Amino acid sequence: MESRWDTGRTEAFSDGVFAIAITLLVLDINVPESDFDDLWQGIVHQWPSYLGYVTSFATIGGLWLAHHGIFRRIQYADARVTRLNLLLLMIVSFLPFPTRLMAETIRDSDAETTAAIFYGTTLLAISVVTWALWQTVARNRDLLRPDVTDDEVRAILRMAAPNIGGYAAGILLARLVPQAAVFAFLITSIVALLRARGTPPDASGRQRHSSTIA
Amino acid sequence: MESRWDTGRTEAFSDGVFAIAITLLVLDINVPESDFDDLWQGIVHQWPSYLGYVTSFATIGGLWLAHHGIFRRIQYADARVTRLNLLLLMIVSFLPFPTRLMAETIRDSDAETTAAIFYGTTLLAISVVTWALWQTVARNRDLLRPDVTDDEVRAILRMAAPNIGGYAAGILLARLVPQAAVFAFLITSIVALLRARGTPPDASGRQRHSSTIA
Amino acid sequence: MESRWDTGRTEAFSDGVFAIAITLLVLDINVPESDFDDLWQGIVHQWPSYLGYVTSFATIGGLWLAHHGIFRRIQYADARVTRLNLLLLMIVSFLPFPTRLMAETIRDSDAETTAAIFYGTTLLAISVVTWALWQTVARNRDLLRPDVTDDEVRAILRMAAPNIGGYAAGILLARLVPQAAVFAFLITSIVALLRARGTPPDASGRQRHSSTIA
Amino acid sequence: MESRWDTGRTEAFSDGVFAIAITLLVLDINVPESDFDDLWQGIVHQWPSYLGYVTSFATIGGLWLAHHGIFRRIQYADARVTRLNLLLLMIVSFLPFPTRLMAETIRDSDAETTAAIFYGTTLLAISVVTWALWQTVARNRDLLRPDVTDDEVRAILRMAAPNIGGYAAGILLARLVPQAAVFAFLITSIVALLRARGTPPDASGRQRHSSTIA
Repeated sequence: MESRWDTGRTEAFSDGVFAIAITLLVLDINVPESDFDDLWQGIVHQWPSYLGYVTSFATIGGLWLAHHGIFRRIQYADARVTRLNLLLLMIVSFLPFPTRLMAETIRDSDAETTAAIFYGTTLLAISVVTWALWQTVARNRDLLRPDVTDDEVRAILRMAAPNIGGYAAGILLARLVPQAAVFAFLITSIVALLRARGTPPDASGRQRHSSTIA
Repeated sequence: MESRWDTGRTEAFSDGVFAIAITLLVLDINVPESDFDDLWQGIVHQWPSYLGYVTSFATIGGLWLAHHGIFRRIQYADARVTRLNLLLLMIVSFLPFPTRLMAETIRDSDAETTAAIFYGTTLLAISVVTWALWQTVARNRDLLRPDVTDDEVRAILRMAAPNIGGYAAGILLARLVPQAAVFAFLITSIVALLRARGTPPDASGRQRHSSTIA
Repeated sequence: MESRWDTGRTEAFSDGVFAIAITLLVLDINVPESDFDDLWQGIVHQWPSYLGYVTSFATIGGLWLAHHGIFRRIQYADARVTRLNLLLLMIVSFLPFPTRLMAETIRDSDAETTAAIFYGTTLLAISVVTWALWQTVARNRDLLRPDVTDDEVRAILRMAAPNIGGYAAGILLARLVPQAAVFAFLITSIVALLRARGTPPDASGRQRHSSTIA
Repeated sequence: MESRWDTGRTEAFSDGVFAIAITLLVLDINVPESDFDDLWQGIVHQWPSYLGYVTSFATIGGLWLAHHGIFRRIQYADARVTRLNLLLLMIVSFLPFPTRLMAETIRDSDAETTAAIFYGTTLLAISVVTWALWQTVARNRDLLRPDVTDDEVRAILRMAAPNIGGYAAGILLARLVPQAAVFAFLITSIVALLRARGTPPDASGRQRHSSTIA
């Protein structure tokens, strides 16, 4: 009871940070007054901002689902879990800065490679810390609820790998074709969002049920 | 018990995004320093900002009521519901951008039509996704609490239709009289807010009671 | 149970808006780069911003306490209560705009009277709507928990009166001495904050106890 | 039950303010367009912003942990606790302003000393008010849950002292070497974050257990 309440407050605080980071992304979207003459084109011209908005939104949305999946399997959080979670929140609430920088410079040949790598690295860091958070929990079965199975633990660990791979590949791609890299980030984050709730293929009926309601 | 907690976290996260999107709207209201000489007129001159503020606030407020009405009838959320909800949140937290653009350009004959259509389209998208969310739930009665009746399901579906119609009509009107279109959006959103808690005429006593406490 | 959950979601949403409105106030505090030569003086020179920050913070803080006191006595919220609450939230999240305007113009003889009246009117509107919210509840004893006494209802109504008086007096004062008016708003909001948790003198032991834990 | 709900709403409101204050810090990080030519250097050049971001994030993160530790030991909050908590929130949501000012001026020999002292004083105020909050609770054992021991109370009081010392030392250092002072604030806040969940050495088994789940 007490422990539930405790993870409850951690979850509420994390959700608050996720919700705010997701919402602040819009503040950086703007059509300059000089584009008011042909406003449709001015709106379209902001496509890098929309690309960044959707990518970062999908990343945080997918993270929220994964975070939810992790914390509902945790019985109580120890100091390491809480600190890793704060580190994760620190990177998530930092995300609007590289997102904005990418949107501002993606059509600037001097800066676009750097901005895409910087953006991808932040996205990669979110994936890695999320993976480390679950890894820490998986190694300390005391932290997990008694009804969580080994298959479930492994399935969640496996779920993180493709995200890490996708962002890493995007970062390498950024050195050659920065704009393509940002689309690779978008696809990785949307795939992560869609996969975040999948049931492991070997899951038992109980797990299948719990994953549908996760 | 577990499933309730799950929709609980979805609701808390959605409420966070709604609350922040609603509150960020004020950041875009400003009286330029050049209007400080006659400040009353400077304040009045910002009327498009207030119009946008009230319209977007009423839209999100009405959505919050409708969302509340939907989720308190849901037993547990599956993957489709969760993803539609994230899509809804993505559009809601995008809303401050078209709101600001409309307020900036509504007195600019070059840009006002475009801005009004862009704003109305975003409002329309919020209505359509909310309707789709409920439609998805209505088709999967497993997701609903056992005590929700068919009448209640239909009544909620019917409730969405006039909002969609109002915003669509406003978008058409925007091609002729952009400023009138924005007032049409305002009226649609206020009507949606007032209707959001109405009881269906054929509702039983139980439903009438549950709607008063919704 | 269901009704508690319902007021629960209203309270959570309101708290979200209060927390964000309170926190956004800081975004409008800035020392211009031209004041970096003598930074202490530059910091001190921003006193109208601090005055606005503390006044608006105390207003929202006191409102949060009063809101808490009202909603914990409510059994379930009906449509009127919910809509009045949304109206209240709309004014609260508007507050950063008049706060900023007051801070920008309070040393500008052309604009300070207008800005002080505009600011005071917003503060007054918050008090009046809070009072109307409680008045609506007080007239519908069904909405109240059965253990709330008539004395308690009257005590809460009486508590609102001095705030309304203080802000109204400040608005009148603003026509003569705008800066003094803003200090009157500050004092009114701090007094409201301190009074927000007082027990009525004729309260029974049960009430005294419940007010200490309110 | 009722009292738990009451501290529950105080905690939720505080968490909201913490989450928003933490997230707003990113809005002040920016690479000016003139640095887009050599963007890596432009990103690196913003190091004072990252320093402020991490320091303020760690401060609020550590405060969140300490706040959590205090409030889960409180049975119900009285008026003094609630008001001290509002004062704490007022300073926390003010923090983005001195953080930004420090980041803007830390390489400006005219302003850096002032900005570092101003920043450190705000951090110190957060520590002192947190300490005063716990001191108030410690002196009113009625407010504490019956199972909280004297050792636990003393251990929490002792935990606050080094933070106050660290920030005070940093403020003194700022007169001589402002940049070193800001690093001292960073170290103090990280140490506070790491210590926030430590168990007192003389704690009994029950306390050790409750601290792991705190």
